Amino acid sequence: MAACTLGELARLVGGRVVGDDSICIEGVATLANATPRQISFLANPRYQKQLQETRAAAVILSESELSHCRVNALVTDKPYISYARIAALFVPALTEKSGIHPAACVSADATIHETAWIGPNCSVEAGVTIGANCRLGPGCFIGENSTIGENCLLVGNVSICHGVRIGCRNIIHPGVVIGSDGFGFANEQGQWLKVPQLGGVVTGNDVEIGANTTIDRGALDDTVIEDGVKLDNQIQIAHNVRIGAHTAIAGCVGISGSTRVGCRCAIAGGVGIAGHLDIADDVTITAMSLVVKSISKSGAYSSGIPVEQNRLWNRRLVHFRRLDEMASRLKSVEQKLGTIIRKQED
Amino acid sequence: MAACTLGELARLVGGRVVGDDSICIEGVATLANATPRQISFLANPRYQKQLQETRAAAVILSESELSHCRVNALVTDKPYISYARIAALFVPALTEKSGIHPAACVSADATIHETAWIGPNCSVEAGVTIGANCRLGPGCFIGENSTIGENCLLVGNVSICHGVRIGCRNIIHPGVVIGSDGFGFANEQGQWLKVPQLGGVVTGNDVEIGANTTIDRGALDDTVIEDGVKLDNQIQIAHNVRIGAHTAIAGCVGISGSTRVGCRCAIAGGVGIAGHLDIADDVTITAMSLVVKSISKSGAYSSGIPVEQNRLWNRRLVHFRRLDEMASRLKSVEQKLGTIIRKQED
Amino acid sequence: MAACTLGELARLVGGRVVGDDSICIEGVATLANATPRQISFLANPRYQKQLQETRAAAVILSESELSHCRVNALVTDKPYISYARIAALFVPALTEKSGIHPAACVSADATIHETAWIGPNCSVEAGVTIGANCRLGPGCFIGENSTIGENCLLVGNVSICHGVRIGCRNIIHPGVVIGSDGFGFANEQGQWLKVPQLGGVVTGNDVEIGANTTIDRGALDDTVIEDGVKLDNQIQIAHNVRIGAHTAIAGCVGISGSTRVGCRCAIAGGVGIAGHLDIADDVTITAMSLVVKSISKSGAYSSGIPVEQNRLWNRRLVHFRRLDEMASRLKSVEQKLGTIIRKQED
Repeated sequence: MAACTLGELARLVGGRVVGDDSICIEGVATLANATPRQISFLANPRYQKQLQETRAAAVILSESELSHCRVNALVTDKPYISYARIAALFVPALTEKSGIHPAACVSADATIHETAWIGPNCSVEAGVTIGANCRLGPGCFIGENSTIGENCLLVGNVSICHGVRIGCRNIIHPGVVIGSDGFGFANEQGQWLKVPQLGGVVTGNDVEIGANTTIDRGALDDTVIEDGVKLDNQIQIAHNVRIGAHTAIAGCVGISGSTRVGCRCAIAGGVGIAGHLDIADDVTITAMSLVVKSISKSGAYSSGIPVEQNRLWNRRLVHFRRLDEMASRLKSVEQKLGTIIRKQED
Repeated sequence: MAACTLGELARLVGGRVVGDDSICIEGVATLANATPRQISFLANPRYQKQLQETRAAAVILSESELSHCRVNALVTDKPYISYARIAALFVPALTEKSGIHPAACVSADATIHETAWIGPNCSVEAGVTIGANCRLGPGCFIGENSTIGENCLLVGNVSICHGVRIGCRNIIHPGVVIGSDGFGFANEQGQWLKVPQLGGVVTGNDVEIGANTTIDRGALDDTVIEDGVKLDNQIQIAHNVRIGAHTAIAGCVGISGSTRVGCRCAIAGGVGIAGHLDIADDVTITAMSLVVKSISKSGAYSSGIPVEQNRLWNRRLVHFRRLDEMASRLKSVEQKLGTIIRKQED
Repeated sequence: MAACTLGELARLVGGRVVGDDSICIEGVATLANATPRQISFLANPRYQKQLQETRAAAVILSESELSHCRVNALVTDKPYISYARIAALFVPALTEKSGIHPAACVSADATIHETAWIGPNCSVEAGVTIGANCRLGPGCFIGENSTIGENCLLVGNVSICHGVRIGCRNIIHPGVVIGSDGFGFANEQGQWLKVPQLGGVVTGNDVEIGANTTIDRGALDDTVIEDGVKLDNQIQIAHNVRIGAHTAIAGCVGISGSTRVGCRCAIAGGVGIAGHLDIADDVTITAMSLVVKSISKSGAYSSGIPVEQNRLWNRRLVHFRRLDEMASRLKSVEQKLGTIIRKQED
């Protein structure tokens, strides 16, 4: 979109203009960098000072912040939601494409919807179905008998192995691998025998998968990513995992085989979750925590330890390793003290 | 394979049928989901209850579980090994291919065995040798003078840089990078001077490498992955590392430069190992542990801390940071107590 | 380069030959593996024993190590820097290429310098500019309106999304993704609404980015990697992060959104840094540490805990979880002791 008025934006998000509703908005920007032709937003109180100095044409904010605003305001109950909807109008339009690029290799046995775009250097194998309005950027490969639902975006260099079913409106970023073999081996006299990985991967609708995230196929049943799940970059999801609807997982998380994560969970960066566990709905796990037992109750869980100056930290470690000795000494002190007190009471 | 009898499967794995050995088996499935035309297995006692309810045609199990089985049984000493061998019969056959796809770019100076398959959008550079029965899926690139041994599978979008030697029967999943430059820089007055990475990478036979795992080339000597090593997804192996034969490494592990890991080790997910260390044979390291010194003795090692409820955890951290103070207070208590006791003894 | 004399190498690095300066050097190697036609180096005292046994033609070393050397020596103040410069002479020459490979797809609206090389199966979209002497290996894609500065090397299978600006002399290894969407979602009644990611990514000059590292585009402003930054493999850099000049980051590090890392920092493997933080210049963070607050002072910071034998470690955890109880018991002991002492003093 080239531009629209502040009044039009307010109607779009059900908000109220304080100031000039005819002012023309040509884009979105941060409070610090907005020009007098851009709209900005305040959703995090830490940026209140910037609100007072912004040159933006207008600012999306809540009623309670209105008094700090010296430019036009678009007042709404949920400024960040309203901002997201307005920003979507200003996403730069990339070239619209449909059809099959001449440098794509598409099997004669694949079914490509006429509105879909298969980019250059893509490989689409036999038995694949690509739904309406899908966009496959350069270098994607879709293995045999996989299905991509309607309105999916595979940005480029995405690998979908055979027998994977992707839902509708999935956004899959570069380097993602879906349907690679799970890590299944049986130990036979010190050597590893491969256990065939015969399941698939199923994703629901409105799933987003960040760059270089990997999702292994199931050993027998499928690995399942339910509706509305959002996965950040560099996440590893092992075979037979199930991620519940609307759960969000930040970067560098690893989830081991056959674990089930509930709905609406929030898992922070670098968390590790062991295999064969059940994590309840509405669980939050903070950064770099380790989960080795099932969690049956919603709430926040942690085991990450924040840094300290090296010298201090080394002293902590020394004490930590002496806890055994400290416990014994404390017990000994208690016993001696008990003896003294008993004597005094005699 | 379309189907075979239970008796035929028992002969294949050296097991014994209890029940109808003429029953027809058309596939493998979990106890919970098997149909009366599929065989299942029991290897983990936690699924014993499912054994009693399964609708499977037959179940692979050990003698000790036989009494719980209400359907046909295939009794063997090692049910999981037997299952792995039987499941291999039912891997769905993907289209068989050989030759060079017209959309592959293969240097005139590369040597491709006539039984090998080079998929679409692959690039095979000068001096490369690809062995018999290799299958390169779409989008792989093989850099100059690299060698791929017989019977390797590169699933797709695999990057093998120049001068890498891959053994026989390797399975390499999408997004794997082998032979990228090691992280070598010399600091010259606050800036980083690149140290050329002149070694290669050598993998043994029967190595499997999971999706998006990276293995850097050596600085001078080679990085070496020995026979039978199994690497899961998203692992980082730095320059000049050597991984001993039949070691298995789970996802998201990072191993720093010049470290040697022994044979038959088991390294769980998210472990970090510092550089220039020696890890003995038969070492197990549990999830998210940090190794900063060499380990000379086989056995299990840990430093991962499991999560607790956030409120509890924060209290733990407070106490942890007061350990120094607690140690002083304990010492002071001991001294005062000593004084009192000495007085009493006088 | 085929070969040169030791004297020529000494002049190149401003060093002094002790021994035969006419000896012919054909390559570089480690002390342990060097042949009598190769030069080696000693930069780490732990290899001093190998110095005494080396068969190398010559060794690059500092004055203080000269007495241990039994072969020709090239004496310099900074042996590792000198080695790096000399090794650069012996990098094996890969085939020189320029132009556009016939199997590359280059938009008519892209500007490719005549000295650049666009390899097979690359996709270069509309509005892209590729600078002089750039080399794009196989399978790279460069999204709309992105810019690659002069003398960059993209090894292969690199994904650069739209609107990214890469500086000069960047080296980008396979599997790298730059400009993927940041992880930005607004929660609306339990579901996630995508927040458009409208910023870009800018890298300075002389940046190196390791295999499978990911750098997300900014939400509104750009994600910025300043001059001379060196990133190892499998690093995740979230949206709106800024990495200061000449900072080096080891493998498997994750940096959350909007965090700023200073100049000349050294961040070890597996570190996690939370979002919206400021890390000062010249900060070192040791392996697998977690940073959740800003760091305003240069120096070294840690929170990684090294492994111990499993049995010992489990005991540590038991004591750790009893710290609360120990603190109470210590307090109780102190009170009772105080009572006794006060009585005695009466």
